[in-house]
Amino acid sequence: MSAPDRTTAVELDAASPLAHHRDLFLLPPDVVYLDGNSLGALPRAAAVRLGHTVTGEWGHGLISSWNSADWVNLPRRVGARIAPLIGVHPADVHVGDSTTVTLFKTLVAATRLRPDRRVLVLEPGTFPTDGYVAAGVAETLGLELRWCDPADPAAALDDDVAVLSLTHVDFRTGAMYDLAGVTAAAHDAGALMQWDLCHSTGAVPVDLTAADADIAVGCTYKYLNGGPGSPAFSWVHPRHQEAWSQPITGWFGHARPFEMERDFEPATGIARMASGTPPVLALSALDAALEVFDGVSLDVLRRVSLSLTDYFIALVDERLGPTFEVITPREHALRGSQVSLRHEAAYGVVQALIERGVVGDFRSPDVARFGFAPLYVSHVDVYDAVDNLVAVMEHEEHARPAYAIRNAVT
Amino acid sequence: MSAPDRTTAVELDAASPLAHHRDLFLLPPDVVYLDGNSLGALPRAAAVRLGHTVTGEWGHGLISSWNSADWVNLPRRVGARIAPLIGVHPADVHVGDSTTVTLFKTLVAATRLRPDRRVLVLEPGTFPTDGYVAAGVAETLGLELRWCDPADPAAALDDDVAVLSLTHVDFRTGAMYDLAGVTAAAHDAGALMQWDLCHSTGAVPVDLTAADADIAVGCTYKYLNGGPGSPAFSWVHPRHQEAWSQPITGWFGHARPFEMERDFEPATGIARMASGTPPVLALSALDAALEVFDGVSLDVLRRVSLSLTDYFIALVDERLGPTFEVITPREHALRGSQVSLRHEAAYGVVQALIERGVVGDFRSPDVARFGFAPLYVSHVDVYDAVDNLVAVMEHEEHARPAYAIRNAVT
Repeated sequence: MSAPDRTTAVELDAASPLAHHRDLFLLPPDVVYLDGNSLGALPRAAAVRLGHTVTGEWGHGLISSWNSADWVNLPRRVGARIAPLIGVHPADVHVGDSTTVTLFKTLVAATRLRPDRRVLVLEPGTFPTDGYVAAGVAETLGLELRWCDPADPAAALDDDVAVLSLTHVDFRTGAMYDLAGVTAAAHDAGALMQWDLCHSTGAVPVDLTAADADIAVGCTYKYLNGGPGSPAFSWVHPRHQEAWSQPITGWFGHARPFEMERDFEPATGIARMASGTPPVLALSALDAALEVFDGVSLDVLRRVSLSLTDYFIALVDERLGPTFEVITPREHALRGSQVSLRHEAAYGVVQALIERGVVGDFRSPDVARFGFAPLYVSHVDVYDAVDNLVAVMEHEEHARPAYAIRNAVT
Repeated sequence: MSAPDRTTAVELDAASPLAHHRDLFLLPPDVVYLDGNSLGALPRAAAVRLGHTVTGEWGHGLISSWNSADWVNLPRRVGARIAPLIGVHPADVHVGDSTTVTLFKTLVAATRLRPDRRVLVLEPGTFPTDGYVAAGVAETLGLELRWCDPADPAAALDDDVAVLSLTHVDFRTGAMYDLAGVTAAAHDAGALMQWDLCHSTGAVPVDLTAADADIAVGCTYKYLNGGPGSPAFSWVHPRHQEAWSQPITGWFGHARPFEMERDFEPATGIARMASGTPPVLALSALDAALEVFDGVSLDVLRRVSLSLTDYFIALVDERLGPTFEVITPREHALRGSQVSLRHEAAYGVVQALIERGVVGDFRSPDVARFGFAPLYVSHVDVYDAVDNLVAVMEHEEHARPAYAIRNAVT
């Protein structure tokens, strides 16, 4: 086997259709950032926009900016930018609360569309907050939370299941569900299909319309680069919108918010997903951040993403052989935009890499996770990451005493 | 009657203990801003901090800032800054979601503390979102929403009432409830007392501990100057915290958020009010914005606030006699930090004032509302506002055809 060559990485980057998109981001020098699946990098436009929103719109425009700067429509304007990334109509996406709160609202509303059914189905490896929310909804409404086999969610479905709620791409392994296939199985059982798109939107093509899904929720601070704690989006299929009744009825979801009427009447369409006053600063930053997707086709995004993850897997196989178990599926159709490696000292491995300027993250108990945001991660980053990983293992940097406790897999 | 004199205003300002606090804010020149009860002005420190949070912490620090910049504790750090403004222990305040979402969480949790009671009591003139939320909670939990007489909330209480939820200062009239007195009446009936402090915190002294209240929620973008759509705070009396169970259980409210456990276990204390990932940008701006309260006693704040509203009322009485009805109580103990004037063409009055650089706001159907944020509004502002109001009425600027439709009180 020939020694791997950084020149190959340089050539792959030169040929990449997204090579110049990296310039749209502020990235610290000397850092290989492979954690965009946890917190996306800063788009330069977001920083500029936020400065203007704060000093110009808030400071100088004050209350008038609700109209003059169109703050009042930010939740839907930002939603319209996200829509093409998930294959839906621009009018059908709302952005507002945290992912957790949004999941609560959609899950309660979904159960109201299936009043004769009393079971929510999730898989036990789902992102924790999804499970916590479902448990909270079940407790609040007197429903049952049922855990399914991740490998076969359909087996858990019966005519008492109201909603099947799954994360499209698994946060720990990077494994990806077949959006259309699983949705069809849910529908065959008469259940509604809710997708959590947190770990796919912006890196993996999503077509909710083609999949005929019912509900989707996703976060915006990972591959959408909206900034720490930026608000989540939600989408509800138009066929459900008229009957849609989410529980947190608030003034911004009212048909006539500024008439200050005593009784609630929901706004038409997805606007009824709104509850309180929209988080203007975060939405403004997110609105500008999403400009990095302008003119980028999802096919190109996916091609570059797969090129990066393929290259990473190949280098790990070649240079680190059996030391690490690649737990992310190797088949393209089953993989998102991250690669996860299992190692009993994964905590130490991740910490030692961070010391070297290669930022991935650790997921308990033994997973080192690397995300490849195709808009700003390069093949050279991938090469350098693996090169540093080889060095970490050669010098046993992962076994430093300081990492011992977290390295101890129990 | 002697002609009013602007010199008096200048002298009042010179003697004000808060005269120099205005310099902490960026305020546009030639604007008299009397709408800080809707959107507070921009504290200069908030703009500076946000720039650092975006470029330094997010851009350069990336994911590591969750620890190195202590993003993870922002909800409680900001809560601790708000605590002295509402008379509670710094460890007992949480900041996170919108006011609407926060009210939903506290109201559901409160009803769980009174499982044998099934009525929520609010007053019909409450801020609309409070009523919408209560209606949503009632529908979700199968409870009853009962409207009380605003002048006598206690009359609506009986042994089926779980929670009495009132806004401390009325958004429309500026009338203020007796915090301790009403709380005692709720307790006499065995109900829990929830206060919405949106229109009082930061301008009116609030002492929840002395009042022995149970729950409080308040917004941070009015007198706390957190910026448009900044997140709300919540407080729960320590005696209720151990049994406190809010319905939107999410990973940031878990006892061990980053262990990614399957089952939910609430964090200790007020931290269980958290649901999703905290809105870091907004919290960071708010954290810096709250520095304007450093070293300001609530007594001084109140004294200046009353001086401003007294002066405004006196000038309106003197110069606009019976043209406007002052619907805000004249008695200090019954008044917040705003003054509302009733006029059939209130919409046109407010618009014409805005044209002249005096910013108040209109509340349907016939109220012109003026807020006096004591940290940055001066007596000269008050004088100039009334002077412009006199000119508007003299020149009948409020009766311009463009304002006709909204002026038509129906």
